Amino acid sequence: MNFSVPTILLDESRARANIKKMALKAREHKLRFRPHFKTHQSAIIGEWFRDEGVDAITVSSVTMAEYFFKNGWTNITIAFPFNFLELGKICGLNERCSELNILIENIESIDFIESYSKTRFGVYLKIDTGNRRTGIEAEEFDTIENLVNTIKKTDKLNFKGFLTHAGQTYSAKSTQEIKAIHNDSLNKLRNLKARFGGEVSIGDTPSCSIVEDFAGADEIRPGNFVFYDWMQYKLGSCSLNDIAIVMLCPVVAKHSLRNEIVIYGGAVHFSKDFIESNGMRNFGQIVDFIDSTWTRPLEKIFLKYLSQEHGIIKTTNDFFNSVKLGSLIAVIPVHSCLTAHLLKKYHLTDGRVIEMMN
Amino acid sequence: MNFSVPTILLDESRARANIKKMALKAREHKLRFRPHFKTHQSAIIGEWFRDEGVDAITVSSVTMAEYFFKNGWTNITIAFPFNFLELGKICGLNERCSELNILIENIESIDFIESYSKTRFGVYLKIDTGNRRTGIEAEEFDTIENLVNTIKKTDKLNFKGFLTHAGQTYSAKSTQEIKAIHNDSLNKLRNLKARFGGEVSIGDTPSCSIVEDFAGADEIRPGNFVFYDWMQYKLGSCSLNDIAIVMLCPVVAKHSLRNEIVIYGGAVHFSKDFIESNGMRNFGQIVDFIDSTWTRPLEKIFLKYLSQEHGIIKTTNDFFNSVKLGSLIAVIPVHSCLTAHLLKKYHLTDGRVIEMMN
Repeated sequence: MNFSVPTILLDESRARANIKKMALKAREHKLRFRPHFKTHQSAIIGEWFRDEGVDAITVSSVTMAEYFFKNGWTNITIAFPFNFLELGKICGLNERCSELNILIENIESIDFIESYSKTRFGVYLKIDTGNRRTGIEAEEFDTIENLVNTIKKTDKLNFKGFLTHAGQTYSAKSTQEIKAIHNDSLNKLRNLKARFGGEVSIGDTPSCSIVEDFAGADEIRPGNFVFYDWMQYKLGSCSLNDIAIVMLCPVVAKHSLRNEIVIYGGAVHFSKDFIESNGMRNFGQIVDFIDSTWTRPLEKIFLKYLSQEHGIIKTTNDFFNSVKLGSLIAVIPVHSCLTAHLLKKYHLTDGRVIEMMN
Repeated sequence: MNFSVPTILLDESRARANIKKMALKAREHKLRFRPHFKTHQSAIIGEWFRDEGVDAITVSSVTMAEYFFKNGWTNITIAFPFNFLELGKICGLNERCSELNILIENIESIDFIESYSKTRFGVYLKIDTGNRRTGIEAEEFDTIENLVNTIKKTDKLNFKGFLTHAGQTYSAKSTQEIKAIHNDSLNKLRNLKARFGGEVSIGDTPSCSIVEDFAGADEIRPGNFVFYDWMQYKLGSCSLNDIAIVMLCPVVAKHSLRNEIVIYGGAVHFSKDFIESNGMRNFGQIVDFIDSTWTRPLEKIFLKYLSQEHGIIKTTNDFFNSVKLGSLIAVIPVHSCLTAHLLKKYHLTDGRVIEMMN
């Protein structure tokens, strides 16, 4: 591999296999597969989903919705709390899409849309089943009832159902705990569906990868699974051979006094997400890289620190001695979504380059 | 202010005042001022430095050197360990620059350049005075002597002196401690200069902002000071009125059960640097925003969590009640360099927009 700067290498066959597997799982469970495109942000990779029959997508911003609309996607859910300040852009998009859905979690948004929108949208109520990032807590029945009834009386909003992101699975300590969180979260939405009607939309990658019980759900929206990453592997969402991207970074310095290697690859390439255990932070996992592919993770060898452009790898003696200045080191990112967002393009193992949205 | 998405607002007069003050300090101490341009990454802002007589700059990558060369800068130090894999690009640049300097910290780099370079570069030895990121530890006299002597015998390298980044000031608990770190670090480089000759180049923003003793130094390379940020304010490097950028973010949800506000503004806007104290992480400080400018920080109101696009603000009761959905909240970034890198453009308070390198 002939790269001189930090580069994302993407294994198309692994990513396509991940897409195929999730699409099949959705079909088997009679779920609409509405994958989240914030992970890859690329029109070309979008086509790999279309090859598996996908025609409805999820995005995390209006800008991203506009990008994918320009690339032929007309059934889009913007999975982010409705932003009053973007109503004009959302209306413009809605007039051209076959289906555009937004998320609502308060009465003010409904009033605002009813007063100012020029078009009629689909709307999901965003429900918080325990993640505590955003959404109406699933137990607030009075609030939910009021919102559903208000939406049903409007001209500008078409009530679609209930949507959650059970992101609390990212803190789970075992796949059993992920299953328990999923069951609890799905159960809460099933209750709401039974009371108020509408669809149930769920979708974090750990749950969608691990569980087999989706009873009562109508659609899934996982995103990260297209690439997976070191965090997902540690959570048990995937095997090593499912991880579809790796970063290749030049070795620029070695420090034998403390068995550390410095790579060109920092916060502007990886972002600063880390996994903490035993008081050490892991910002990226070093793996073997042979014949253009990455294989086993190297025990006790990881990115321990990132500054803007520098990455510091903690190594063993043997690995330290085996690594040459001017060679490339392969690092599995902790969080592939943020890494991809920063790098803005993918190199495929066959030499092609795939661009992302700007 | 009429923004609908997360936006960096830059106060040109504050940034120009920061530049003028640092340029004056350098002149008073008879130091070459070679500011680090990795913070702003913008040709237009580069011109504000030129207005203060700056003609030599520091960058953190070859790509950044190429960008600023295209924008008229011909005296550049690439302050990153020499990357074997970019020698061709460095040679191409060197042929067109009046002065191009690189950093070396091992014999392999010297041998490689001597064997393969087509042109002659300036070279600084990168010295580690305690930061433990990269560089030769300042006490390794034998290694340093060997490298200096080897460089002096080459055709392709012109020995310029010793360079350090005393980044350990970022962990200092007081301005007294910053001064002590600076004195220790500078003293180590003065010793090397006395033994082996050459220049002394230093340059972290905390030291350059706070200290008045630069005896023995030849040049300073601070970068962050052009904008400063919440981390620099907490370190004591600047006053609140020196901070030249703020992020404006739309309010998209409110959670009264836990006094939290959700903004459109996440890891893809702020990066994930934080300041930790009392077990809480602060990813950005909320400030008052009145008449297009930001003033006092709001006590106990800060970004406590970021995901890809969401930011969660911990608030007080009073502030919670005063904030409306669809309004903008002003946030001082923890680390302005990474925030600027992510946003890719600046909005000035008079409405103009400044682009950065891609």
